[in-house]
Amino acid sequence: MENSVLKFGGTSVGDFEKIKEIAESLKDRTILGEKLIVVVSAMGGTTDALLSNVSRLSPAPKDDHIALLVTTGEQQTISYLSIVLEDLGVRTKAMTGFQAGIKTFGGHMKSRIADIDKACLLDALEENDILVVAGFQGVNDQNEITTLGRGGSDTTAVAIAASCDMPCEIYTDVDGIYATDPRVYKDAKRIYGISYDEMMEMSALGAGVIETRSIEIAKNHSIPIYLGKTLSDEKGTWIMQETEVLERKAVTGAALDEDIILATIFEPHVDSTLIFDLFKRFEEEAINVDMISQVAGNEGFQLSFTIKGTEAGKLDQIFAEIQMTHSDMFLTREKDFAKVSIIGSGMRDMSGVASKAFMALNGSGIKFYQTTTSEISISYVVDKIHGKHAVESLAAAFDL
Amino acid sequence: MENSVLKFGGTSVGDFEKIKEIAESLKDRTILGEKLIVVVSAMGGTTDALLSNVSRLSPAPKDDHIALLVTTGEQQTISYLSIVLEDLGVRTKAMTGFQAGIKTFGGHMKSRIADIDKACLLDALEENDILVVAGFQGVNDQNEITTLGRGGSDTTAVAIAASCDMPCEIYTDVDGIYATDPRVYKDAKRIYGISYDEMMEMSALGAGVIETRSIEIAKNHSIPIYLGKTLSDEKGTWIMQETEVLERKAVTGAALDEDIILATIFEPHVDSTLIFDLFKRFEEEAINVDMISQVAGNEGFQLSFTIKGTEAGKLDQIFAEIQMTHSDMFLTREKDFAKVSIIGSGMRDMSGVASKAFMALNGSGIKFYQTTTSEISISYVVDKIHGKHAVESLAAAFDL
Repeated sequence: MENSVLKFGGTSVGDFEKIKEIAESLKDRTILGEKLIVVVSAMGGTTDALLSNVSRLSPAPKDDHIALLVTTGEQQTISYLSIVLEDLGVRTKAMTGFQAGIKTFGGHMKSRIADIDKACLLDALEENDILVVAGFQGVNDQNEITTLGRGGSDTTAVAIAASCDMPCEIYTDVDGIYATDPRVYKDAKRIYGISYDEMMEMSALGAGVIETRSIEIAKNHSIPIYLGKTLSDEKGTWIMQETEVLERKAVTGAALDEDIILATIFEPHVDSTLIFDLFKRFEEEAINVDMISQVAGNEGFQLSFTIKGTEAGKLDQIFAEIQMTHSDMFLTREKDFAKVSIIGSGMRDMSGVASKAFMALNGSGIKFYQTTTSEISISYVVDKIHGKHAVESLAAAFDL
Repeated sequence: MENSVLKFGGTSVGDFEKIKEIAESLKDRTILGEKLIVVVSAMGGTTDALLSNVSRLSPAPKDDHIALLVTTGEQQTISYLSIVLEDLGVRTKAMTGFQAGIKTFGGHMKSRIADIDKACLLDALEENDILVVAGFQGVNDQNEITTLGRGGSDTTAVAIAASCDMPCEIYTDVDGIYATDPRVYKDAKRIYGISYDEMMEMSALGAGVIETRSIEIAKNHSIPIYLGKTLSDEKGTWIMQETEVLERKAVTGAALDEDIILATIFEPHVDSTLIFDLFKRFEEEAINVDMISQVAGNEGFQLSFTIKGTEAGKLDQIFAEIQMTHSDMFLTREKDFAKVSIIGSGMRDMSGVASKAFMALNGSGIKFYQTTTSEISISYVVDKIHGKHAVESLAAAFDL
């Protein structure tokens, strides 16, 4: 039987009862002959409690000391789960990040995985039924303990799966990926198979559940990822190579981002350094600029783009700076916009998607201000008040 | 200025206020140019809370999983103390057992230190003012996390001091070593200097504060140990080489163990295998047999010995087993005895100690049943109800 990597998040291991239930279900799988590598997060609430202690001690703590502290959370979970598994008669070895040979590089609290000691893991799996590995953590080349940042435990699981060439099952409190957010469109359909590219596009466009970084690793190593609900029999979502997705549709999903700023710049001089100055500042402030469109002519040029609503303050500041050196430019920025996107690898070789989407929005009386397309997605900027209705129209039109 | 190793126990780092106060006092020392290696235990209560969780999960958890769990306690303390020290502007590096290169051997929860990475510690001290090292923990040659058993953080501190050739200061909630327990003899005098051998004898005979194992390491490497009260100006006790102890007295201290069993065996056959069988079982059950005296003659032999009162159950079981194969032997065991001891390296070359002690007990009307002597101690078995009075008589006689 094939071995697997499984990952359980913080709410899945939120208390000892849940840990016991998960242990029982893992035991059932080992009885069938499977060997498992189980990656766990800190028990729900633990990390927050530790961070709140830190804020009581210092207004500006150093990242290396915070990482050292919060990683005790996962170390405790692996101990507890291992104790319960052994109690059920399952041969179990618990491993922290450094014990699993998870080598990282980059900042202490946003590290990336450089290497995993595959031999160490496979040797340990030889002598045990289950390895319980602490997610979210590793050690850098100075032997300092580091954390992997947002979605870190998912990354740990997928990276181990990639390194050991096993499929990866990620369990959370949602039962898979939906074609669009069920809170936005109540008839949203669950997706049982989706390609890496589609999933990355959906994650990037706001459909959470799993970070693009983890999907990227899985794609590069052709490791299938399953997303499912902890301890549920409900069928979840497999993320896999495009050729393996059985049910091909032109559009797989729709996403909604309800907090978008639309900015427009008009500058009479075509040879101005404006764009260079502006985008240099955006880069410095790590502002993600999206959906850029530009019209240039003899009388200057006009540039429109969208950014996240949360970056409004930074944008205003940069605009004020730029206006000092480019006094004759004209700047506007409006909030209360939403971005609606449809995603599907099928767009590549199925025509008529753009016109069908246009007709759906038009038929619902929804005006859009800007549109951009990638190879497997189309996005529209609409008024914020029309965001949900736009998703509903598109979901109905494409049977999502 | 000489660098030092300092150790703070669980009650000394019991809450964040205490951690902040300790950090302030450490900062004051670094300002004077000192560099420090600070070993800390888990915050008071943390280890017990973790162990209580374990007992909720399994009646028979494995040592390796427990060790992995409880070591998160010290890892949290080193993080917190480092965060506060950095906040005070002290360059600080926190190190877990594996990061400090503390290699161990033996059982996961009663490991002994095999090696410490001195170069790693001294290099880190070069770039920092303070290293904060997790006590009580290390890694074995399988890279598994281990704990050092009772008094483990003291052992960590003394072993680091021995490895780096620095003096070691151990801070607890008592202000040093007393010639006898102040709870037993209210006029007990504090000892400001004591030799390694005397301290080991006192520890072995029941005067707690520090485990013999730590003193042994200090003795072998001629590392002076200071025992003092956390954040107090009171002068504590230096444990050092005998030649460096200035104030030489024949008797340095007195100790009392109030829970002693006196066992006596009578066996008519001199060639019996009884003793062999009995002591083999004691060894198997890890029972410490003390104060053995034997009288052999043509009509068999009589053997008396003492053991700790807590071993009563095991002793009864072994006696029952032995009686099966040695049916004509006669066994008795009585509790309610106490062992009173006087300790002092001065006994070696000062005569009259035994007779003076005898006169002191006799003068107080205290009967003793058995006596044993080592090179630097004399012990007496007395009735439990006379234990405290015996110590008072001896303390008064020898000016303790």
